[in-house]
Amino acid sequence: MINRIAVYPGSFDPVTFGHLDIIKRASEMVDTLIVAVLVNKAKTPLFSAEERVNMLRSVTKDIGNVRVESFSGLSVDFARRQGAEFLVRGLRAITDFEYELQMAQTNRIMAPEIDTIFLTTNLKYAYLSSTTVREVASYGGDISRFVPKEIEELVEAKYRGKR
Amino acid sequence: MINRIAVYPGSFDPVTFGHLDIIKRASEMVDTLIVAVLVNKAKTPLFSAEERVNMLRSVTKDIGNVRVESFSGLSVDFARRQGAEFLVRGLRAITDFEYELQMAQTNRIMAPEIDTIFLTTNLKYAYLSSTTVREVASYGGDISRFVPKEIEELVEAKYRGKR
Amino acid sequence: MINRIAVYPGSFDPVTFGHLDIIKRASEMVDTLIVAVLVNKAKTPLFSAEERVNMLRSVTKDIGNVRVESFSGLSVDFARRQGAEFLVRGLRAITDFEYELQMAQTNRIMAPEIDTIFLTTNLKYAYLSSTTVREVASYGGDISRFVPKEIEELVEAKYRGKR
Amino acid sequence: MINRIAVYPGSFDPVTFGHLDIIKRASEMVDTLIVAVLVNKAKTPLFSAEERVNMLRSVTKDIGNVRVESFSGLSVDFARRQGAEFLVRGLRAITDFEYELQMAQTNRIMAPEIDTIFLTTNLKYAYLSSTTVREVASYGGDISRFVPKEIEELVEAKYRGKR
Amino acid sequence: MINRIAVYPGSFDPVTFGHLDIIKRASEMVDTLIVAVLVNKAKTPLFSAEERVNMLRSVTKDIGNVRVESFSGLSVDFARRQGAEFLVRGLRAITDFEYELQMAQTNRIMAPEIDTIFLTTNLKYAYLSSTTVREVASYGGDISRFVPKEIEELVEAKYRGKR
Amino acid sequence: MINRIAVYPGSFDPVTFGHLDIIKRASEMVDTLIVAVLVNKAKTPLFSAEERVNMLRSVTKDIGNVRVESFSGLSVDFARRQGAEFLVRGLRAITDFEYELQMAQTNRIMAPEIDTIFLTTNLKYAYLSSTTVREVASYGGDISRFVPKEIEELVEAKYRGKR
Repeated sequence: MINRIAVYPGSFDPVTFGHLDIIKRASEMVDTLIVAVLVNKAKTPLFSAEERVNMLRSVTKDIGNVRVESFSGLSVDFARRQGAEFLVRGLRAITDFEYELQMAQTNRIMAPEIDTIFLTTNLKYAYLSSTTVREVASYGGDISRFVPKEIEELVEAKYRGKR
Repeated sequence: MINRIAVYPGSFDPVTFGHLDIIKRASEMVDTLIVAVLVNKAKTPLFSAEERVNMLRSVTKDIGNVRVESFSGLSVDFARRQGAEFLVRGLRAITDFEYELQMAQTNRIMAPEIDTIFLTTNLKYAYLSSTTVREVASYGGDISRFVPKEIEELVEAKYRGKR
Repeated sequence: MINRIAVYPGSFDPVTFGHLDIIKRASEMVDTLIVAVLVNKAKTPLFSAEERVNMLRSVTKDIGNVRVESFSGLSVDFARRQGAEFLVRGLRAITDFEYELQMAQTNRIMAPEIDTIFLTTNLKYAYLSSTTVREVASYGGDISRFVPKEIEELVEAKYRGKR
Repeated sequence: MINRIAVYPGSFDPVTFGHLDIIKRASEMVDTLIVAVLVNKAKTPLFSAEERVNMLRSVTKDIGNVRVESFSGLSVDFARRQGAEFLVRGLRAITDFEYELQMAQTNRIMAPEIDTIFLTTNLKYAYLSSTTVREVASYGGDISRFVPKEIEELVEAKYRGKR
Repeated sequence: MINRIAVYPGSFDPVTFGHLDIIKRASEMVDTLIVAVLVNKAKTPLFSAEERVNMLRSVTKDIGNVRVESFSGLSVDFARRQGAEFLVRGLRAITDFEYELQMAQTNRIMAPEIDTIFLTTNLKYAYLSSTTVREVASYGGDISRFVPKEIEELVEAKYRGKR
Repeated sequence: MINRIAVYPGSFDPVTFGHLDIIKRASEMVDTLIVAVLVNKAKTPLFSAEERVNMLRSVTKDIGNVRVESFSGLSVDFARRQGAEFLVRGLRAITDFEYELQMAQTNRIMAPEIDTIFLTTNLKYAYLSSTTVREVASYGGDISRFVPKEIEELVEAKYRGKR
């Protein structure tokens, strides 16, 4: 029997309800979904890779076939090392689409055995990004509609520390 | 054990190399892929529903888990009756994307249990549509780069009959 | 005191929750909002102009400063004859945007004294169009999430008559 | 010495200031510019092919290296028969761009020796299309900002005949 | 009698003819238009907030119902504190549109009582942004077509100081 | 006899197969094509201007009418100083298109005698950018499908030096 594995890569800084929606739906498509936290040394995230992995593990703990890992380098290389057949990406808007299409085509050149699957973000979360969450929280705004309760507290604690 | 079923709906008038690329890749994602020929009474296709079903069966005969059916009405209603969890759609360009996004959101309202999965068309076929095939063939142009050999002959026969 | 008048032109075949959302919000921006039903002799609508005017009057009867009229010809000419300063348009997506932008620029050339104001459709209704409503209803699908109850009954009656 | 020939295909129903802008600029890029009126039997134009050719000849009579012809079939086939190396197309907007990009890629497959050159429409005419001209004229609106004087009279005569 | 207030937020670094066009048209839609200069500590503008406020006050001094203020934080929070019902935004292009649509939806979640109104930039200024102005001026180019005379002098003085 | 000169400006950091495709096709349109390496003091390129000029001279040495230069400031100013009539730009995608359209319109304001010509990137290279090449190479990935052999070695040498 085939064990279908997909990788859902991203920064998740922090994880939002939009990410969670994609994770739940993608987990129903495959046998194992690996949520993969990108460690990009060129950027300074709000949360460390370890914090982001822990946050994702916490909010996905009730979905049996989800695993959370961190990685650096190219998504397709990580996917290949994990034996995955698929990359999963969420699509929100035109500008997303252009970038994602370009990445999908590049990845196909580099790893033809791995296909990219796109899911469209639920309309309820179509406005939502980690950047929005950080921006609103940095001004002391209410982010309870954007992230789970436990993430809300961690984000607010970060910015209290920064003010 | 779960039997994952997906429906790939379309007009396929006629099936192109671009459709075949999506069919092959989608068939690797699920246990059963149903290629579903839309019968739209309001339009006059080049090929009848029966011809299109036969053409698709012929060009997919070597892919074990593909089934070809025709349907009328809404894709999600057909998918629900087939016990499918997923709709599969190919994405080529921005204008596709807008339309497909709108359909995916409408379908989610009408059948929340069925998710839409998008695959991006291989760059080699990104320019290609059934409309292009029909237009080029109607002027006697060469369509051998666009469709399998056996489809090419059927399309050319149609237009010889029309001239 | 200035009496600000805006015209919200459209086909409204039939009016949807998305149109109603724009009507409510636009009515708060101006002193008088004229909802203007376009009579296009080149097209065969599902509902006659008179039926569409009556449907709009019925669903907007609780908004004090809304008036419903029908017109043929160019929106800007109708707006000018009504003494309106503004046209109101709803924006849902990129393809809408392109078309609307082109119309707004043409209208500015033809009637520089009338400005076009755009409102973005509420995300809840971003998927929704009169075309979708008609398509779903034509297959006997459920349109109660798309239009007010009284409109739902009128649409279903039309299609019962057609089957 | 090379004789560079380009073909600028279109419907030109009627020719607008936007087309004229592209014709002037393209004529400076090549030795011979062939403006090619598409005869599409599936559509009913406002002006016959002969009328459109005559209108174009009249408004381009002062540009030495422009020739006006009509053709049916595929643009690339016509270009090839004329010994042209280039197709010229004007770009106005995103939706134009998508369609034009698809055509350019299809044409490259069918005639690799002919390249497509895009010019962006002058902003002053970015809102303008033959469809707009016909629509405004059909309601008796003023089209003097859209087309040369002599074309204006011909368009208005057509619609007087239709009313 | 209702006092309709709108806020037009932006960086205005520096104000251009495109901004002025939006200010004039928006001022005709409402009783009071507050032009709001965003103070973003994370960025280093060419002009200080105080300079940008003064420049805007100077070029809008003949429009009776315009007030210029600076603010930091979220636009909707500032609008709410000012008792405004509307945010005004100018739209130039697709990429603008996507970003603006996302912001409008986020703002609606955070302040449902404040609506966002979009005006399309006059075609004459559709190419124009503060970034373009700064880039052209930094190379000693002529910016007299982009900004009012007095702003031109202030921008050039800045770059003389920098060279 | 007219000597048609075009300038193809860019960063070329490094030159890719996509750039080479545009260079070859543009060189067939004009008598002289000047490939112009932009020196932007505000950015830190991977390769110095001198290295980029040398790389371009090497990979274009077999195309007779191509000259490679570097420049700083505005492309149109450089083009004017070179006596060029045309700027050449490659188009890959929607986001490219928007930016390029804006630049073309700005350039037309600043130098009406210089026109911008767009070529669409060959589909084979539509996914490809210098940024992609640098990103893949920085992780030790294979870039042989993206750049000529000699460029590949130079890029890999750079990153070996950086690791």
